[in-house]
Formats: sequence, structure tokens, C-alpha cells
Amino acid sequence: MAQKPKRRAEERADGGRRERIYEIVFEADTPAGRFFDVALLIAILLSVLAVLLESIESIDSEYGGVLRAVEWVFTGLFTIEYLLRLYAVRYPLRYAMSFFGVVDLLSILPTYLALFLPGTGSPLLVVRALRLLRVFRIFKLARFLGEANVLSTALRASGPKIIVFLGTVLTIVLIVSALMYLVEGKEHGFTSIPRAMYWAIVTVTTVGYGDVVPQTVLGRIIAAILMILGYGIIAVPTGIVSAELVEAKRNATTQVCPECLAEGHDTDAVHCKKCGSKL
Amino acid sequence: MAQKPKRRAEERADGGRRERIYEIVFEADTPAGRFFDVALLIAILLSVLAVLLESIESIDSEYGGVLRAVEWVFTGLFTIEYLLRLYAVRYPLRYAMSFFGVVDLLSILPTYLALFLPGTGSPLLVVRALRLLRVFRIFKLARFLGEANVLSTALRASGPKIIVFLGTVLTIVLIVSALMYLVEGKEHGFTSIPRAMYWAIVTVTTVGYGDVVPQTVLGRIIAAILMILGYGIIAVPTGIVSAELVEAKRNATTQVCPECLAEGHDTDAVHCKKCGSKL
Amino acid sequence: MAQKPKRRAEERADGGRRERIYEIVFEADTPAGRFFDVALLIAILLSVLAVLLESIESIDSEYGGVLRAVEWVFTGLFTIEYLLRLYAVRYPLRYAMSFFGVVDLLSILPTYLALFLPGTGSPLLVVRALRLLRVFRIFKLARFLGEANVLSTALRASGPKIIVFLGTVLTIVLIVSALMYLVEGKEHGFTSIPRAMYWAIVTVTTVGYGDVVPQTVLGRIIAAILMILGYGIIAVPTGIVSAELVEAKRNATTQVCPECLAEGHDTDAVHCKKCGSKL
Amino acid sequence: MAQKPKRRAEERADGGRRERIYEIVFEADTPAGRFFDVALLIAILLSVLAVLLESIESIDSEYGGVLRAVEWVFTGLFTIEYLLRLYAVRYPLRYAMSFFGVVDLLSILPTYLALFLPGTGSPLLVVRALRLLRVFRIFKLARFLGEANVLSTALRASGPKIIVFLGTVLTIVLIVSALMYLVEGKEHGFTSIPRAMYWAIVTVTTVGYGDVVPQTVLGRIIAAILMILGYGIIAVPTGIVSAELVEAKRNATTQVCPECLAEGHDTDAVHCKKCGSKL
Repeated sequence: MAQKPKRRAEERADGGRRERIYEIVFEADTPAGRFFDVALLIAILLSVLAVLLESIESIDSEYGGVLRAVEWVFTGLFTIEYLLRLYAVRYPLRYAMSFFGVVDLLSILPTYLALFLPGTGSPLLVVRALRLLRVFRIFKLARFLGEANVLSTALRASGPKIIVFLGTVLTIVLIVSALMYLVEGKEHGFTSIPRAMYWAIVTVTTVGYGDVVPQTVLGRIIAAILMILGYGIIAVPTGIVSAELVEAKRNATTQVCPECLAEGHDTDAVHCKKCGSKL
Repeated sequence: MAQKPKRRAEERADGGRRERIYEIVFEADTPAGRFFDVALLIAILLSVLAVLLESIESIDSEYGGVLRAVEWVFTGLFTIEYLLRLYAVRYPLRYAMSFFGVVDLLSILPTYLALFLPGTGSPLLVVRALRLLRVFRIFKLARFLGEANVLSTALRASGPKIIVFLGTVLTIVLIVSALMYLVEGKEHGFTSIPRAMYWAIVTVTTVGYGDVVPQTVLGRIIAAILMILGYGIIAVPTGIVSAELVEAKRNATTQVCPECLAEGHDTDAVHCKKCGSKL
Repeated sequence: MAQKPKRRAEERADGGRRERIYEIVFEADTPAGRFFDVALLIAILLSVLAVLLESIESIDSEYGGVLRAVEWVFTGLFTIEYLLRLYAVRYPLRYAMSFFGVVDLLSILPTYLALFLPGTGSPLLVVRALRLLRVFRIFKLARFLGEANVLSTALRASGPKIIVFLGTVLTIVLIVSALMYLVEGKEHGFTSIPRAMYWAIVTVTTVGYGDVVPQTVLGRIIAAILMILGYGIIAVPTGIVSAELVEAKRNATTQVCPECLAEGHDTDAVHCKKCGSKL
Repeated sequence: MAQKPKRRAEERADGGRRERIYEIVFEADTPAGRFFDVALLIAILLSVLAVLLESIESIDSEYGGVLRAVEWVFTGLFTIEYLLRLYAVRYPLRYAMSFFGVVDLLSILPTYLALFLPGTGSPLLVVRALRLLRVFRIFKLARFLGEANVLSTALRASGPKIIVFLGTVLTIVLIVSALMYLVEGKEHGFTSIPRAMYWAIVTVTTVGYGDVVPQTVLGRIIAAILMILGYGIIAVPTGIVSAELVEAKRNATTQVCPECLAEGHDTDAVHCKKCGSKL
């Protein structure tokens, strides 16, 4: 992303067809680019909707032919778009290996695969929904970018602590599962430790399906402790993200006074709040 | 709301009947206005209670006639009130199109509609509960207004980030649903992708009814991952709202510059950050 | 609580029996007082345990006589304690009407009531658990009191905002319930609006028993929206309490510099951090 | 942990075999030590996986012999490692009584016990998962240590408040349970107060299995209140941890006074708050 401004300047001077396609397909600054992005947004939503409808048996048996045709039309359009992207971009391989490059390919592959392996291909087309993430770019105004920076800074800073937290939760899940496997046993649905782990995750995350439940007194006591743990322990990652966001926000609104080196001015400050000199 | 103070001054000078009705029906500053609001609060609660009782079969079969009469009495009173509001307000159309204007109309419409379309009208009358939001005004002391400002500032600032968060959650729901539809299949209750999406939302929000549950090993692993995701990811919006509220509170507890009237200085500021004069 | 220190000084000068009983029964500063509180703590726990065991049929049929005897012994002891408290305190009526006075009375009443109305009295004795709140006083070291102050300040400040939040949630519950009553109808378990409200609360709080579940497509869509709302909306009260606690903590650690009036010093600060003069 | 640096210096000067083993088995600074820790990490994961697979009946009946052999190999390796630790450490008894010493012993005991008491020993081997906590040390870079400090400071500061919170929740659970036992009675699954407590914990933590549900109108009203309480009350511990983390972070990002070495100054401090000298 960093070398883009310089590059686009070159391309504009150049003025070639490839550059114009790049402008339309990858950027959202020109009217044509914005029109392309909005059209793409609608196409993705419609094609995902078609996949959803196709999976409903009663609709599929009646309108199956239409939906299959719609699927082929959108797959065709997305294939053309994918080839255009490969053509327009300076380093096609780098694009093809990038996150969005892979998603773009996966968005069209299942339809073609279904030709050779008939059956379960088409539900995989919902991977197209991931492409909507790209279209968020349309809304990327200056304000949004700033906000996203604060958010991603905070989440990156929270990362290692969240992993330690998840590791602790999973260790608890593992030990409680083995206990419950011994206490409740096969006759109450805890047929194996992995099965008991499924129950423990359902419980600690407070989902609580109720398809497997403890039935002995000791099992219920262990389950109650696990529930209280799961209920209370969520405070930890929430507190971590909150604290990081508070800090990220504070740092985001910081300039240094050139005279007295005071920090902590608001973004809209004109004068230093300590010595009154211009910022 | 902004032009109200000026306007009410005019009206008091004028002193007409319409203005006095406006005082009573729309404001809560005078004794009459406060009495009207309290009476309205009680009437709304009673009429909603009547609707609830009417929906219970055993009560309806015994006291159905009384409840229907109560419904007509309250609908009559609310109709008079609606007409009074239309009469008292300066721009009737603007009021009729406002949020509360629409709610006021919807609060009386179902009873009249039931004359022509007998059957399911009366449960819709619970829309009257929305009118209670207006009555919150009675409690709107200065302290409350300040608090509400901090809260609404923070929520408005959180808005775009919450939408990005919800978009991400829904994309995850969509992709997990398609996977589960393929993995679990129709015989385990995942009869279509939209049906699987219902399951995925029940799971990711940790509601966990248990009416549809995964039954294959792979399905349970995917479900466990989705649960842990839903359990942990709630930390993000909570952190966002917390951080915004901390910031909103910090900005709310601040002085005004005596020279340029700028607001939003930090508590430890010595000079106005806008004009540089001493605070 | 405020007039206590002065009063206890008077009492000590007085030196009567009533004052010594007051010292033992109400305070935890003297060795005798602390011993009394610890003994009371154990007695409460044991008596609550006896009530729990009595409610288990298999244990009651075997040890019922012993448990009933234990209940009478503890009720006797608590009655003596209650009378002592009434005797020792300066204003008996004021104590009898206070929160702990009422709890103390309710802790012994059910056993006596069971003499006249045999049957269901004894489970009510678990109200004794509320008396444990008094025994928290034993742990009330200086550090604890400070912490509790910060917590109660923050919770009191959060109060009105939490009430507005709860009011909004209940309004949503009411309107969704009426909708679901119309959409799902009696045949799917939504037999009345109050019944639908029970379902809506089970859903919005993410409890999700699964005893009533939507079964139509439209009902499932409404339920999914309600779940996402309930899942996301919890961020608001959490954010409110977090922000209030951050503020309460900041204010708790604040002195003002007598020279330069700077605020925001830590509790362990000796010198002003701005001008360096002694605090 | 505090006396380690001094001690390791002595050991290096000494240069004996015991010291080299200590370096490898307890530390992760040298290449050999890091290799040992990574190998241990993999061995723990594999041995836990073997225990999980052994508990699945279909896998056990086919590969039971192989899995039992794997169990014995890992138990042998961990026994050698345990003896090495006992030999290398200066105070073997202190190590044997420490948290990790006990875990290391428990990790090998069940296999030996199964020789004398055949049957249910092997699931207990998942206690080995706790040893993974030691291996977190490999990732303990400087950055991580700082983060963990902030986290553990905040959690320790939150401790007493969280305990008060849990005590309050459990008192509510106890009283609601007795009420529900009286209201719902044995015929609706609330067969005893402890059974009702299990239901109340399932409800207040928003797990909601649905294996026991209220069936009377009054029972449902009490349940709804308990749900709203459990849904809202989670804001309190979350707020506590958030506020403590915000404070811990603020204190962590601070300078040291060059004169008196005092820590904990605010970022905007000009003078040391302890001795008043310029920072």
C-alpha cells in the first residue's frame, strides 16, 4: 500500500490502458472506480443470495434452473474481473498470492469444480462474502481510517495477552473434560474425552445447548464451577481490549509542544495548553 | 428542539389557548404539564397491561368484554390527545412525520383497523410502550441531561466501529453456515444454508437453544471454534464503548475559556488551547 | 453509621453491661467481638447447610429428626442473638426497621411459623444467607473500605444510566414479544404475550433454554435479530460501569497542590509533580 | 524467582555437571535449554493427544496396544525428567512442594497407579496439560514479561472486589433457589434446594441448558428477573478489571526519578513526587 501514491503518479503520466483499468478495478477515487465498486458490491450480494436460495430444497426444486443460470452468469463476470485484475496489476503473482487474490480465486473455483465433481460445490460459493471486506474500501473516508487505526493498534497490542488467556481457558477445558469423563461416564453422554471437551466448551462459553448435561451430583458441582468460571473470566479479555483502546485513543490525540515539549494536547488544539505558544 | 426556547417566549407573550395546550401536552415544566405527563404514563402502562392480559386465553374468555372496553376507552383518550397535539403544535405535519408523531398514530390505529379487519389487531397495540420513551422526559433533570449527552456522544462515536464489527461477525456466520450445511447435512437439521445461519447466530451469540446441534465430529469442532470466537469477540464492542465513554467523560468535565468561549480543555490545562489566553 | 464513633466514646466512659454487649455483638474491633463474628459466620453457614440437606428427600427421610433438631438449636441461638441486639442497641426500633434488623428477624421467623402452619416453612430459612453480608465486616480492613467506596461511588453514578438501559431493553422485549405472538402463534408455544415475553427475556439475555423456540421462517429472523441485539447491547452497561470506575479511581487518588493548584497527584505523592513544592 | 540471577552466576563459576543440567532443564536461555523446552512442549502435546485418543472407544479397541505403549514411553521420559529436576535443583524439597513440582509428579503418577488399581487411571494424565504453562516461559521475551506484569498487577488488585462480587452472586443464587424450590416444587424438576441451585447457576451465568426449566407463571417471573440480573451484573467484574488495567497501564508507562529512584510518576510530571527534584 505504501508505494501506491508514487506509482499511480507514474501511471497517470504513462496514461496506458492497463493504468485506466487499474484505476477502475482497484481504486475507488474516480467516478468510474466508484461505480465499479458499487456494481461489484451488488453483484456479490446477489450471487450470495442465489447460493442461499439454492440450498433451500423447496425453492431449488422449483427455480433450480434459474438459480444455476444466475450462478454461471456471476461466476463468468467474476472470472472476467479476476483476469482484469491479474492484467492490470504490476506484479500479478504478488496479487494472486495476497489474501484478496486468493479469495477472488476461491470465489469462482467451486462452480468450475462442480463440472468435474458434481454434488456439493455450490455452497462453497459463500466464500464470496469475504469479498465484501474489500468493498468496505468505498466507505473508507479519512475519519474511518483513523478509527480503524486506533482499533487495529489496540487489537494488535491485546493479541499476546488474549492468546495467554485462550491457552488458560483451553487448559481448564482439558482438565475439566477428563474429570467429567471419569465422573459422568459413558452412560450420561460423556463417551470420550474429546466428547467431554465439546461439552466443556459449550459450557464455559455459556452457550449451553443442553444436548449433553451432567446427571450425577459431583458432575453438576464441577459443571457449576466451570460455568461461574466461564461467566467471570470473560472480564479479562474485555478489560484488556478496553484498556488498550483507552491507551490507543490517548496516544492518537497527542502532539508535542515545540516550545515546552508538553504532551497530551487535543487534536483540535491550536495553542499549547501548558505555555500558550502556538503548536 | 433547537428553536423551542425562542418560540415558547413568543407563545407566552401571545398567551392564546393553543399555547396553553402546548405547555400542558408537550412540556413538563408547569404543574399542569407535569400532571398531564404522569397521568399519561399511568394510562400507557394500564393500556399495555390490558393488551397483555387480553392475549392470555383463560383471562380473555372470562373478562374479554371488560378488556375490550378498556382498550376502546384508552384508544379514545389517546385519539383526543393525538388531535390536541396536532392542534397545539406550530407545524402539525412536521410533528406527524417525526418519530414520536408516528408512534402516537400507531398507538391508536390497530384498534380502528380491527373494526374492518377483525382478528389479530390488538397485540400490535403494545407499540404504545414506545410512548413511554417520551415520558422519560419527566425525569429529565439537569443531571440526567448531562449524563444522556455523554452516553449518546459515546454511542454515536462507537457507531461506525460497531458496524464494522457486526459486518465481520455476519461474514463469519455466513461462511461457517455454508461449511456446516456441507458437513452436517440435511439429516442433522441443517436443511439449508439460511437454517444453518439461524444455528450459527444462536451459537455465536452464546444463546444456545439446543434445537439444532452438530452431531458429526467435524461439525462439533467447527461449532466449538465458533463458540470460542463468539465468547471472545464480544470483548471488542465492549472495549469500544468503554473507551469512548472514558473519553466522553473526560471531555465533559471541562471549563470554558473566558475569552473565546472555547470548550473541551483538559482539566490540567493552564492556557486556552484555541486562543492561548489564561484560563 | 456516621454518629457511631462519638457514641461509642460515650459508651466506653459509661462502661455499663449494655455497652459491653454492644461491643461484642455489633463491632469486630475487640478480640471478643471478632470471636463472636467468626462464631456467627460458622453458625450461619452450618444452619444454611442443614436447610439445604433437609430439602433433599433421601437425606431427609433418614436424618430428618437430626436436621430438625439442628434447625431448632440454631433458631434458638439466633433468637437469643436477636434479643441481645435489641437490648444492646440505643434505638431498638431503628435497628428493628433497618435492613439487617429485618433480615435478622426473617432468619428466625419461619421456624416459629412452621409450628402453626406446618409444611413449607423451612426452605425460607435460607434468608439467613443474607446475614453473611454483615459478617463481611470482619474483613473490612482500611484497604477494603477504600475499594468498596470506589466501587459503590461508581455503581451509584452508573445507576440512572443502567435504568435507562434496562428500560430500553424491556421496551424491545415487549414489542418483539407482541410480534412473535402474532407470527408464531399458539401452536408453537407462544400462547400469550406474557409467555412470549418470557421467551424474549430468555433470548435477549443469551440464556437460551430452548423450551420455547421459533419455528417459522419469519419468527427465526426476528429471533436472530433479537439475539444479535442482546449480544451486542451488553457492551453499553459494561462500558458505563468501566468508565465510571476509571473516573472514580482517578478522583480517589487526587490532591490539589497548595501552591500551584495542580491536580492529579498520586496518593503516595509528597511533592507537587508540577512545581515541586510540598503537598 | 528473585534470587535466581545471583545464584546462576555462582553456578556458572562452579561449572559442575549439576549446574549444566539445571541450565538445560530449568532455563530457556541457552540453545540446549531452548531445544529441551521445545522437545518437552512437543512431548507433552503428543502424550495428551494419546490420552484423548485412548478415551475414544472405537480407536481404543483398534490401536489400544500402541496407545498404551506410547503412554508408557512418555511416562518413562517424564519420570527421567522429574528425577533430573530433583537432582539439578538446589533445594529438591522446595521444588517438589512447589506448584510445578506437584504438577510434574501428578503427570507421571496415574500410569504407575494403574498397575495396582487397573481401570480409570489414564484419563487423569491430562493433568500433563498443566505443564504447558511452564513452557510458556519459552515465549517470555522482555515485552511479554512487561505485559504479564501489568495483567497480574491488575488481576491481583481486582481480586478482593471480584470475591465480594462472587459472594453477592452466590447469595442471590441461594435465595432464588429456595424460592424456586417452594414455587415450582418437585414435580417440575426442582427436587431439592441444591438441585435448584444448580438450575440457578445455569441461569444466572446465561448458560441455559434447558434440562430444568420453570413451568409455573410465578417461577417464570422469578427466572426472568434472575436472567436480567445475571445479564446485567457481568458489567461489574468487567468494569473492575478494565479500570484496574487502565490504571496499571498508566503506572507502567513511567519514568524513574534520577535522584531518589522513585517510580510511578505520571507521564506529564515535571518534578519527582517523592523528593521534588527535576525529572
